[in-house]
Amino acid sequence: MNPVELIRKKRDGQTLTEAEYRFLLSAYVDGHLPEYQMSAFLMACYFRGMSNEETLAFTKLMLYSGEVLDLSDIPGVKVDKHSTGGVGDKVSLLLAPIVAACGVPVPMISGRGLGHTGGTLDKLESIPGFRTDFSIDKYTKLIKEIGLVMIGQTEEIAPADKRMYALRDVTATVECIPLIAGSIMSKKLAGGADALVLDVKSGRGAFMQSDQKAIELARTLVDIGSGFGKQMLGFITDMSQPLGSAIGNWLEVVESVECLKGNRGTDDESKDLMEVTLLLSGAMVFLGKKASSVQEGIERSKEALATKKGYQKFLDLVKTQGGDVSSVDNLEKYPISEFSADVKSSDRGFVSSIDPLEMGLTSITLGAGRQKIDDIIDPKAGIVLKKKVGDPVAAGDTLAVLYTDSEEVISPARDRIGRSFKIVPDRPTLPPLIKYIVEEEGIRKWDG
Amino acid sequence: MNPVELIRKKRDGQTLTEAEYRFLLSAYVDGHLPEYQMSAFLMACYFRGMSNEETLAFTKLMLYSGEVLDLSDIPGVKVDKHSTGGVGDKVSLLLAPIVAACGVPVPMISGRGLGHTGGTLDKLESIPGFRTDFSIDKYTKLIKEIGLVMIGQTEEIAPADKRMYALRDVTATVECIPLIAGSIMSKKLAGGADALVLDVKSGRGAFMQSDQKAIELARTLVDIGSGFGKQMLGFITDMSQPLGSAIGNWLEVVESVECLKGNRGTDDESKDLMEVTLLLSGAMVFLGKKASSVQEGIERSKEALATKKGYQKFLDLVKTQGGDVSSVDNLEKYPISEFSADVKSSDRGFVSSIDPLEMGLTSITLGAGRQKIDDIIDPKAGIVLKKKVGDPVAAGDTLAVLYTDSEEVISPARDRIGRSFKIVPDRPTLPPLIKYIVEEEGIRKWDG
Repeated sequence: MNPVELIRKKRDGQTLTEAEYRFLLSAYVDGHLPEYQMSAFLMACYFRGMSNEETLAFTKLMLYSGEVLDLSDIPGVKVDKHSTGGVGDKVSLLLAPIVAACGVPVPMISGRGLGHTGGTLDKLESIPGFRTDFSIDKYTKLIKEIGLVMIGQTEEIAPADKRMYALRDVTATVECIPLIAGSIMSKKLAGGADALVLDVKSGRGAFMQSDQKAIELARTLVDIGSGFGKQMLGFITDMSQPLGSAIGNWLEVVESVECLKGNRGTDDESKDLMEVTLLLSGAMVFLGKKASSVQEGIERSKEALATKKGYQKFLDLVKTQGGDVSSVDNLEKYPISEFSADVKSSDRGFVSSIDPLEMGLTSITLGAGRQKIDDIIDPKAGIVLKKKVGDPVAAGDTLAVLYTDSEEVISPARDRIGRSFKIVPDRPTLPPLIKYIVEEEGIRKWDG
Repeated sequence: MNPVELIRKKRDGQTLTEAEYRFLLSAYVDGHLPEYQMSAFLMACYFRGMSNEETLAFTKLMLYSGEVLDLSDIPGVKVDKHSTGGVGDKVSLLLAPIVAACGVPVPMISGRGLGHTGGTLDKLESIPGFRTDFSIDKYTKLIKEIGLVMIGQTEEIAPADKRMYALRDVTATVECIPLIAGSIMSKKLAGGADALVLDVKSGRGAFMQSDQKAIELARTLVDIGSGFGKQMLGFITDMSQPLGSAIGNWLEVVESVECLKGNRGTDDESKDLMEVTLLLSGAMVFLGKKASSVQEGIERSKEALATKKGYQKFLDLVKTQGGDVSSVDNLEKYPISEFSADVKSSDRGFVSSIDPLEMGLTSITLGAGRQKIDDIIDPKAGIVLKKKVGDPVAAGDTLAVLYTDSEEVISPARDRIGRSFKIVPDRPTLPPLIKYIVEEEGIRKWDG
């Protein structure tokens, strides 16, 4: 096979066979196919897309470029969750222990902060001592021990994806649904779960800014998973404002712990976070066959919260993965940022929007994320929202508090956060938080 | 500037500024911009094209990546010709000496065989001793001496194009009109001519297989040339069958010499070749201000042929560029191929088509072209057509003769050539040979 002919074929809108993808990907991993041919191919994919069969073949090859875990000797239906990423999205930290507490094993492979969004691994690692770089053997051992494990993509998992992702990042070929879907699913499928719940975020704080794109991605992900014989359930959820109140790694751990303890999440700025968490937990418990419907799964999840079993499972997770349990149990022991500043409202009325993209980007300037690939994150840094969309505001009210160790970034960050809040005279209508449910059979509006 | 942002900009259909192209191209030539970013950019250009301003800026940067010859101290309007390449297209060999004989200086930078088409340099180099690799100094000296020079792209001429062309070739990004036009014009403009005649071929034997694509390319080339203040005149000519009778390097020199001597070209298989040659010569003589119209230029060219001044100029060219004049003057002295074979017709009727792409590809298998970049051409090898489209044929008539030194390729080549001739019972209508004229003002059908 001639790689130039395969690039031309994709360029001209034809469909490639699985054998052709195998040739391209194995030559790429071997180093026989130069990066410049792969990047031209990826750009042609950007413009031409892939058929369902192509996406499946592509994902399969990425998946089998590395090890695929076999968790079949662990009893029960293993269920993982994937979120396409948003601002303030700490759902994994809450949901994984809740679902495990309901008796469903959760083998979770997570990612790091990407663009303006945070990453579960970075959040977990803000807990002193917490490790996410375990080998595959240790991974299997942990899931057997406590029914829950949260690690990152190791060298053994989908190495073709790892290399290709780095190339896409520098060639403007990231924003392509089959490539995104193949990348996500090759990693998730390698983790060995039997079922997967998807949270595809839509809105200004998400990578998919329109519902249409989010639905397209969700359908592609569900199709791939189903093609691999996995139980799949997807949701399109709103990312037009940050989720919950905290943005920043340790700040999000604190919010998660308070929610797990039952101190927050009912009628405060964490309410939307808990609604999304319980929905996705419910779906996982349902797919894990510990409930006969998503709704019943939500009830089981609420019980796990009320009985503190979810919180206990979180402490187990912290302990088994090397983290300092006492700093979680005594949140006030954690070091605090050198500087904090209130962002106050100059208007009165109601919050009509909070720009999540600006919030995510601003939190990075405070130290909560990486501007360059080798930047070190300040776990304490970030933003805590005191008002959410729909809340009434009086002039002088605190809208948000920022935390940082760099004095020089405070003033521009404060301005930027202030500008991200829109205040209007009349109470706005809130957009639905859960928009659609995507199943193998099709998609429909979510009606609770 | 961030190269990823520039790739994204082109990918999303936006227009890049000249400064942005300058950044990309100079970083590429410096080695700071990796090939994989350039190839992704080129693929995005394939899909998004370029505006007129972008094409002009891109060409200018490619042109000024190397030396641009200044021939202003040579009196007269210097005129070059470019053909987009076809099968059996030996027009340059005829036209350059004819035009120079009419008193118009011809500084010509030519190319090598590409794909299924032959190249002027390979044809000239089939003449023993003929050199095309002169330095720029020698180039200027030769044009002053005999009013004619034919060389290849040197290291000094448009080096950015040279490097980018090699990358396009292996990333399926060749077939993109602004990139093709930029590549052609950067080389042609570097040669220092004041005016340029274009022969854009259309049909199955050409790179532009439709009239529409050929017209688009011709217009782009004319626009670029005009943008650089050059006089431009373009023609769309037919490449639905090979031009003239010979395909193969020395075989084409023989046909050209016979035409220059007046022994061929009036009412035989070289008739179409002479018609195209005289048209383009006429246009060059007109642009060179030695005639007041293309038609009058054609008359001047016919006179140069009739008086043998064109042939004399060709001998001068061979001599000054180191070639063996006696082998041109005594064509029978040249070594002959070890094998030759007639391809005969099994049907009677009229030739309705001769597939030029198949003819070009078959001539390569005989040794007349390169299958790999470092293959050595057999100058003697090739095909001579004995019938052209429209000719009557009896069963047993010779359609073509093939020449090669490799016995094993004879049988498959004979079959392939035989299948390339279509014989029909009724005399077919011939397509027009000269289809359109393209000027700065616009395009119109050619009516002679």
